Amino acid sequence: MIYGALEAGGTKMVCSVGDENLKILDRAVFPTVTPDTTIPQMIDYFKSHGISSLGIGTFGPVDLNENSETFGFITTTPKPHWGNTPILPFMRGALQVPAMIDTDVNAAALAEFSVGAAKGLRSCLYVTIGTGIGGGLIVENNLVHGLVHPELGHMLLRPLASDPAPDGFCPYHKGCLEGLASGPAIEKRWGESAKTLPEDHMAWTLEAEYLAQMCVNAIVSFSPEKIVLGGGVMHRSHIFPMIRRRTLELLNGYIQSSALLNGADSYIVPPGLGDFSGVTGALILAKRALEA
Amino acid sequence: MIYGALEAGGTKMVCSVGDENLKILDRAVFPTVTPDTTIPQMIDYFKSHGISSLGIGTFGPVDLNENSETFGFITTTPKPHWGNTPILPFMRGALQVPAMIDTDVNAAALAEFSVGAAKGLRSCLYVTIGTGIGGGLIVENNLVHGLVHPELGHMLLRPLASDPAPDGFCPYHKGCLEGLASGPAIEKRWGESAKTLPEDHMAWTLEAEYLAQMCVNAIVSFSPEKIVLGGGVMHRSHIFPMIRRRTLELLNGYIQSSALLNGADSYIVPPGLGDFSGVTGALILAKRALEA
Repeated sequence: MIYGALEAGGTKMVCSVGDENLKILDRAVFPTVTPDTTIPQMIDYFKSHGISSLGIGTFGPVDLNENSETFGFITTTPKPHWGNTPILPFMRGALQVPAMIDTDVNAAALAEFSVGAAKGLRSCLYVTIGTGIGGGLIVENNLVHGLVHPELGHMLLRPLASDPAPDGFCPYHKGCLEGLASGPAIEKRWGESAKTLPEDHMAWTLEAEYLAQMCVNAIVSFSPEKIVLGGGVMHRSHIFPMIRRRTLELLNGYIQSSALLNGADSYIVPPGLGDFSGVTGALILAKRALEA
Repeated sequence: MIYGALEAGGTKMVCSVGDENLKILDRAVFPTVTPDTTIPQMIDYFKSHGISSLGIGTFGPVDLNENSETFGFITTTPKPHWGNTPILPFMRGALQVPAMIDTDVNAAALAEFSVGAAKGLRSCLYVTIGTGIGGGLIVENNLVHGLVHPELGHMLLRPLASDPAPDGFCPYHKGCLEGLASGPAIEKRWGESAKTLPEDHMAWTLEAEYLAQMCVNAIVSFSPEKIVLGGGVMHRSHIFPMIRRRTLELLNGYIQSSALLNGADSYIVPPGLGDFSGVTGALILAKRALEA
């Protein structure tokens, strides 16, 4: 059985095929130009590999309400040409295979929950910190959709007085997580990329503060059994201990759980699947589509 | 069939019995003194009514992990005498009936979800704003427990510059929801009870701001299909429109959902069951205990 996995992003569409063991067999990348150009390229790719089903993890917002007339559409994205694009119906119609769609971060959360850092638990928050910030969520063994789907990057935080750009850089919200702590926010604030800022730069104190505030609010809101932090910014792994320490400081002993002992070392963690959470999650969605 | 419902609170224990239609047939209130005194009173009450099963909605923190050795214990409460109290094992052992336990706010959320303001949906956030602030949560049709259980009152907020007490009054956290917006926080800040503060008092601008921040963070974190606000402070119903307006201002059009149109009038709402969410939820837990 060959499964197709589509990681639909705002700059590139990563198409992969994998086997029943979630092993990736092949991969192709197409730039995200327009639906008219890019969708046929993806269809050709998956057709040539004879996939049995398809899983899609996509940028959003996306309509995940199965009872909606626009189920499986990318909806109100500011990305030119891609607003109101029926990506799931297009792909399923052309390929004639079962398909399942979710957000890119929900796909990653599903992978970490199924075979990664949160394996064996009943809940898991996956957050990617990169060009943007997004969160995928599994609660009591279910992917969370709800009214729309989580948009964790827009959580309102409490900017530090020492922050030279306390309003952040989100065009919608002053002082939201993405506006304060995404890769571009770091670079705009300090004039240097998160990739190269030295480990002792004040940027990391602020970054750890904001990610710790997010962890605290996630813990008190829905009590995830594991918080997985991925994405480009988290490749700077020296901030994991900083985030853990500050999360515990902010919680101040209020939440009693053995998971928070020993510095929360095994509670706030990098992805078990490294940079492969997204593709693995899309393959799991494909498996689920075939079983459904 | 007669069901027992125990609403276990820090000042009083409300014991009720109800029928299969969730109609309340009788009620008795015992002050929360010590387990040695109070638990036998409750056992006598329920024994005398010949209940078939018992549902408990309790103050917390409470251990809700069925695989834990302390499942059904009130754990680290600062309430004198009640730390580490096996309330579920005691009640079940003495009454010899099936019993189910959850937090008081999860019980209320379950009631609003089953027969109240969120009936027919798949998710619901219930928040009580009174002596304390707590949140109960249903996501994808399941009550949320997770690592511990939600402790929504301790969400970190962004205090307003115009707040005369911006740190709030929580002994654990500066500027958390409960510390800023509970009934006692209002009274400490303004020297007057939330019950009597005039509708045009600045207290309500601050209160609406903090509850709106909480609503925004809930919406972006787990996307509930309905937010139900109950508890004593919300009896001052003039703040509902203020909270809705401020929530939409803070979201700034980022979340596109028909539920947020028309001023979110039917999205952020009072309890459909008025002050009976808690007891109704405990009765539903009792029904579930019998069915399980």
